[in-house]
Amino acid sequence: MELCIHDRGSGSRAAPSAEDPYTKSYCDLGVHQSMLRDRERCQWYRNAIEQVLKERPGMVVLDVGTGTGLLAMFAARAGARKVYAVESSRMASLAQMNVFDNGMSDIVDVLHSRIEDVKLPEKVDLIVSEWMGHYLLHESMIDSVIFARDNFLKEEGTMLPSSARILLAPVSAERVWRDKVEFWSDPEETWGLTLHAVHPVAVEQMVSSPMIVRVDETDVIELPQVLWECDMYKITPAEVRKIAKSMTFAVNQTMRGACIWFEVSEDSSNSVLDTSPSKPETHWKQTLGKCVDVMDALINNDGAVMFPEEVLPSFLPSGKVSCVTEMSRVHGTRQYNLMIDLKPVPEERKDS
Amino acid sequence: MELCIHDRGSGSRAAPSAEDPYTKSYCDLGVHQSMLRDRERCQWYRNAIEQVLKERPGMVVLDVGTGTGLLAMFAARAGARKVYAVESSRMASLAQMNVFDNGMSDIVDVLHSRIEDVKLPEKVDLIVSEWMGHYLLHESMIDSVIFARDNFLKEEGTMLPSSARILLAPVSAERVWRDKVEFWSDPEETWGLTLHAVHPVAVEQMVSSPMIVRVDETDVIELPQVLWECDMYKITPAEVRKIAKSMTFAVNQTMRGACIWFEVSEDSSNSVLDTSPSKPETHWKQTLGKCVDVMDALINNDGAVMFPEEVLPSFLPSGKVSCVTEMSRVHGTRQYNLMIDLKPVPEERKDS
Repeated sequence: MELCIHDRGSGSRAAPSAEDPYTKSYCDLGVHQSMLRDRERCQWYRNAIEQVLKERPGMVVLDVGTGTGLLAMFAARAGARKVYAVESSRMASLAQMNVFDNGMSDIVDVLHSRIEDVKLPEKVDLIVSEWMGHYLLHESMIDSVIFARDNFLKEEGTMLPSSARILLAPVSAERVWRDKVEFWSDPEETWGLTLHAVHPVAVEQMVSSPMIVRVDETDVIELPQVLWECDMYKITPAEVRKIAKSMTFAVNQTMRGACIWFEVSEDSSNSVLDTSPSKPETHWKQTLGKCVDVMDALINNDGAVMFPEEVLPSFLPSGKVSCVTEMSRVHGTRQYNLMIDLKPVPEERKDS
Repeated sequence: MELCIHDRGSGSRAAPSAEDPYTKSYCDLGVHQSMLRDRERCQWYRNAIEQVLKERPGMVVLDVGTGTGLLAMFAARAGARKVYAVESSRMASLAQMNVFDNGMSDIVDVLHSRIEDVKLPEKVDLIVSEWMGHYLLHESMIDSVIFARDNFLKEEGTMLPSSARILLAPVSAERVWRDKVEFWSDPEETWGLTLHAVHPVAVEQMVSSPMIVRVDETDVIELPQVLWECDMYKITPAEVRKIAKSMTFAVNQTMRGACIWFEVSEDSSNSVLDTSPSKPETHWKQTLGKCVDVMDALINNDGAVMFPEEVLPSFLPSGKVSCVTEMSRVHGTRQYNLMIDLKPVPEERKDS
C-alpha cells in the first residue's frame, strides 16, 4: 500500500515549496495556535526544560525552529544563561518582539536564519527543538536538529528530546469504519433510502490514503511494537531516509489497518511525551494506515462489500498477521511515502 | 478587499480542473456525506418535493446533478411518474445502483451526462436541483440549471427552488476575533508569556481572505439587506457573471466585517431554506468577509494593534457605513472574486 500524505492542514507545518517558501512567509498562525493549544506538547517541553535546567542552571541553550519563541522563553524563564533561538521563517521577527515584550532580550538572541547557515559565538549545553511531525517524521526537521547537534553541541551537551520512537499496532478502526463506511447503510443518515451500493467506493476511498485521526484506545486490538527508534545523540540523516521493518502480530479481532504514533523522551529525567491512542489527544493525533491487501478482499467482483467479519475468520483463532512497513523520504522533500503491507501468515500444515 | 475563495474542503463541491475533472471522478464521498448529514438541506428538499408532488401528482421530474440520487428518489417516493436524474460524475453509476436497490428503476432514469449534452425523451413538469454553493454562487452550477430550464422545462413547469437571494449584514465577528486575534493576549493560552506582538499578523491573516464559518446570531449587529436576488424562471447566465451593489448601514457597535449568506425558496408553498446565522447550521455555514479599509486602521505604523473600540467611535453614535460589494466570476471557472469595501460615510457638515 503506497501512502503519501500531503497534509497541509492545521496541526502540520506548511511544507517548503516554490510558491510558498516557508523561509519567507509567516506560515499560517493557525499552525502555531494549534501547537500552543496542545497542552500535552507544551507541558512536556516546559517541564522537561525546567527539569534539565534545575539540575544544571546557567546552561547555554539552542532552540532549533523557535517559531513564536515559546521554548526559548521557557528556557530563559527556567534559568538559562543564554538562549539562541533560530528561526528560518519571518516568524523570527515576531519571536524577537515576543522576547522583548517578555523582558528577555538580555538572555534570548533570536536569529533569523536557517540553522545550516547560522553562526553562533559559542557551543551550547542544551539543544531543545520541537521537530516532530505526524508519525514523527512527516514534514519534520530532524535533519536540521542533527546538523545543530553536530555543529553546535558541546561534547557533554544535552539533547531534548534525547530519543524518539515510532510505534505501530493493529487496529479495528471501528469509529472510522462506522463513519466512513457503515454510514451508507444507516437509514437514519440516508433519509429512509438504501444507499449501500456506495459501500465499495467508501472502502476504496478509505484505503487509498492514510488518515491523520484520533484513534480510540479501544480500537487498538494488539500490543504495539516498536517500528523504529533513535538516539538523538547518534542518529545520522542517512538513517532517516528510509525505514523498513517486518513484524508479526497475533490478531483475533476484526483488523482494518495499522495505527502509527510516536514517543519522544528526555532520558535523564525519564520524561516521555507519548502520542499514543491511550494518552490525551495531541495535535499530532495518530496516523491510520489501511491495509490494501486485506481490504481488497472485501470487495468482490460484483462490487459488493464483503464485511471483514466474513473475511477475517480465516485469521482465527490464532491468526497471525505479518506487517511489513516501509517509510521512505520522497526525494528532495520532507515528505515520506508510507507503505504498510499486512498479510495473514499461513498456518504451518501439520499433515506434511 | 479582494476575496477569492479556493475552498475545496468538505461541504463544497470539488471544482472542475485539469487534474481532477469532476466529470470523471467520484468526488470525495465526504462531500456527499456532509450534504446527507445536513438536515436543514435534506428536510427542506424532501418537504418541498412532497408538497409540489402532492398538489400535482404524476409529474415528470428532472434532477440536475443528482449525486447519490437522493432528490430524484425523494421525487419518486413522493409520486412522480418519471424522474430523469442527470449526473456528470462517476457518481452516476452509484446513483443507478441506489435507484435499483430502492426498487425505483421503473420510475428513475439515471443519465450519466453533463446536462448540456443530455437527450430527454420528453419535457418535464418539475426541475429540482441542489445547485447552491457557499454564498450561493461559489463553485455552484446555476448555469447548468438555467440550461436545463431553457431546454427541458414545460411552458407551465415548476422550478425547485424557484427563487434565491443573497443577504449581507455587518458583523462584530466576536467569536472569530476572540479565536484568531485575542487568543494571542490570553496568558492561559500562551503559557504565562506575552505574545501580543503577534496581533498585527493575526489581524492581517484574518482580513486576507474570507472565511467559511458559522457566525453567531449575536454577532450580526444590523439588519441584513438583500445583496442580490433572482427568479429562477427568468435569470440568465449573463446575470450571474458579475454582481455589484452599494448599501448603507447604520452601525453603532464594533464592526469587524460583513457576513454573507443565502436563502432559496419554493414560492408556491412559501417554503424557505434559510442559511442565516439565526437559523440552524447548514454545511454552507456563512461567509465572513473582512473589511480591509476599516481593518487597516487597526494596525498603526509601529505595528501595534489599535483595537476596534478605539477606532470605531468615529462612526458613533449614528455612524453610517457604506458597503460596496462586488462578486465577479473568475473567467472560465465556477469561482468568484468577492470584494467587500466598507467605509464610514462622513457626516454632513452643519457649519457649511
